[in-house]
Amino acid sequence: MPTDVNTLGEFGLIEHLTRNFPISQPSTVKGVGDDAAVIDNNGLCTVVSTDMLVEGIHFDLAYTPLKHLGYKSVVVNLSDIYAMNATPCQITVSLALSNRFSVEALDELYEGIHAACLHYGVDLVGGDTTSSPKGLVISITAIGQAEKNQLVYRNGARVGDLICITGDLGAAYLGLQLLEREKRIWLENPEVQPNLENQQIAVGRQLKPEARRDVIETFRRVGLKPTSMIDISDGLASEIFHLCKQSNTGALIEESGVPINPEIQLLALQFKLDPITCALSGGEDYELLFTIAPEDIEKVRFLPEIYIAGEMTHPSDGIKLSTTGGNLHPLTAQGWKHF
Amino acid sequence: MPTDVNTLGEFGLIEHLTRNFPISQPSTVKGVGDDAAVIDNNGLCTVVSTDMLVEGIHFDLAYTPLKHLGYKSVVVNLSDIYAMNATPCQITVSLALSNRFSVEALDELYEGIHAACLHYGVDLVGGDTTSSPKGLVISITAIGQAEKNQLVYRNGARVGDLICITGDLGAAYLGLQLLEREKRIWLENPEVQPNLENQQIAVGRQLKPEARRDVIETFRRVGLKPTSMIDISDGLASEIFHLCKQSNTGALIEESGVPINPEIQLLALQFKLDPITCALSGGEDYELLFTIAPEDIEKVRFLPEIYIAGEMTHPSDGIKLSTTGGNLHPLTAQGWKHF
Repeated sequence: MPTDVNTLGEFGLIEHLTRNFPISQPSTVKGVGDDAAVIDNNGLCTVVSTDMLVEGIHFDLAYTPLKHLGYKSVVVNLSDIYAMNATPCQITVSLALSNRFSVEALDELYEGIHAACLHYGVDLVGGDTTSSPKGLVISITAIGQAEKNQLVYRNGARVGDLICITGDLGAAYLGLQLLEREKRIWLENPEVQPNLENQQIAVGRQLKPEARRDVIETFRRVGLKPTSMIDISDGLASEIFHLCKQSNTGALIEESGVPINPEIQLLALQFKLDPITCALSGGEDYELLFTIAPEDIEKVRFLPEIYIAGEMTHPSDGIKLSTTGGNLHPLTAQGWKHF
Repeated sequence: MPTDVNTLGEFGLIEHLTRNFPISQPSTVKGVGDDAAVIDNNGLCTVVSTDMLVEGIHFDLAYTPLKHLGYKSVVVNLSDIYAMNATPCQITVSLALSNRFSVEALDELYEGIHAACLHYGVDLVGGDTTSSPKGLVISITAIGQAEKNQLVYRNGARVGDLICITGDLGAAYLGLQLLEREKRIWLENPEVQPNLENQQIAVGRQLKPEARRDVIETFRRVGLKPTSMIDISDGLASEIFHLCKQSNTGALIEESGVPINPEIQLLALQFKLDPITCALSGGEDYELLFTIAPEDIEKVRFLPEIYIAGEMTHPSDGIKLSTTGGNLHPLTAQGWKHF
């Protein structure tokens, strides 16, 4: 009987499909399994990451302006390159689109792509444009450069390393809840105008996230090299699992150390959601999660927007959340299960 | 009123969308407009090409085994890297797939990808796997390496250069006609078994094409560097237009110099098609079209499977076909229009 792909999960499926693909090229430094692949050129290393965004799965054009979609599609890929401590320099953009998209619609999408290229200083160098029987598919590949010894992987954390986060979490997820709520209201009553006033933070983070180029530049300035790093695209809980699995450590996250914007806390409560759950499992924040050696703490202590949220522990200790109430809960990759 | 994307054509659309994207990165050697982009790493150059294949547009699973599809998806990308006179070393594979695909179906697809990786010596280093509301989309990016001075672009041909083709043309197109015919018969009468006997050449070229790695290796061995090169994915006529446009030349193609397999000639006639039209406009042959300086003729004259098919002329002479009957016809990017 055929096996449903959902039984394996996204990461399980990728592991399953790529298990028989050994690395044979001497230039391949890192293959499948990190934020990006790394290729040695006897000079600077090339860092490559790719993402596919599918209409109806990753974005809903009912509330996503095409310009924002173009911008975000680029940003999510650049974020993966920064998560390697590398500098993105080029992107390729491939599109499959149905005939309901006009040249003007594509112009809007490319305006957003262009704005992201300008903002992050990357060149559009290629791609493919083709028709699709239905909907829009965007596949972007980002290419970056770094010195080999500057690269930061997921597998370098050690027991005792401090866990750091570059900004507040949960906002993008709540932005999505808001947009979905207004869409439902609008579908029920097309006369009602969406009410997104005073929700710029959440909606902005969902529709127009930024990648943390500034953080990578700060690392250079203060001479800091994290021991491991990943970008937070699926939520803090899922990402810390990746770091722990690849570094062979456990982790202790302090609830009080997980940064959440006060407005986002209020918004979560309006939606009857636990703010820490949104921060742990929300995803799409595109902040960086990284670990540093304990002796490097002075380099980050006074940096704005770098929060120390816990430390890496022995693998036998598992991955746990220490709540503000003083309890210790095991984390799951899906976040924190309330008991 | 919104403008239909089809009014611009594929190449026109790409030109339109990317017109405002100047190159700003010092590492970008070549951006949009060749078989692949080129990135300088202060060492070997990185060569990047990407293609998106959409079910119902580029392939029909009614007659395309998933294993062949996986193989071909890789090969068409590698062909672009060889067309830069570079060596492909890595690929990334992104998939969007609906829930009608099982793990076993994906295993078949990846068997083909794996076979191509093994055959061409490239590593699978990344990708993305996601769901799609409908159908299968495959986006592959191929990454190669080359010394900067070894790269061959589309724009280097000069008036008087000889036009060369690496193998016979038209077979893949006739393979597609055969498969489509058998599909129609099968749809009308599911009892009838497809009759593809003695059609291995055409069907094989359509379902399992190969990229001309051997030709690039031969170039190295005999010390030949073409002046311009492109792979034949859309048909000889379309590709010679690209070379002429970017090199600012005209071209004279000799009908007698365009290699067509005798079996494919017969097959074309069975389909009431002109064999030379199939060769000029068929596409998907993945042979290489290149030009050489006249003084290099001795280096290719005795090589098997390299055919001299004409020469580059003054741009004012246009792009013409000299028929075996002694007539001169202007070529169009769609091939040769009979009058």
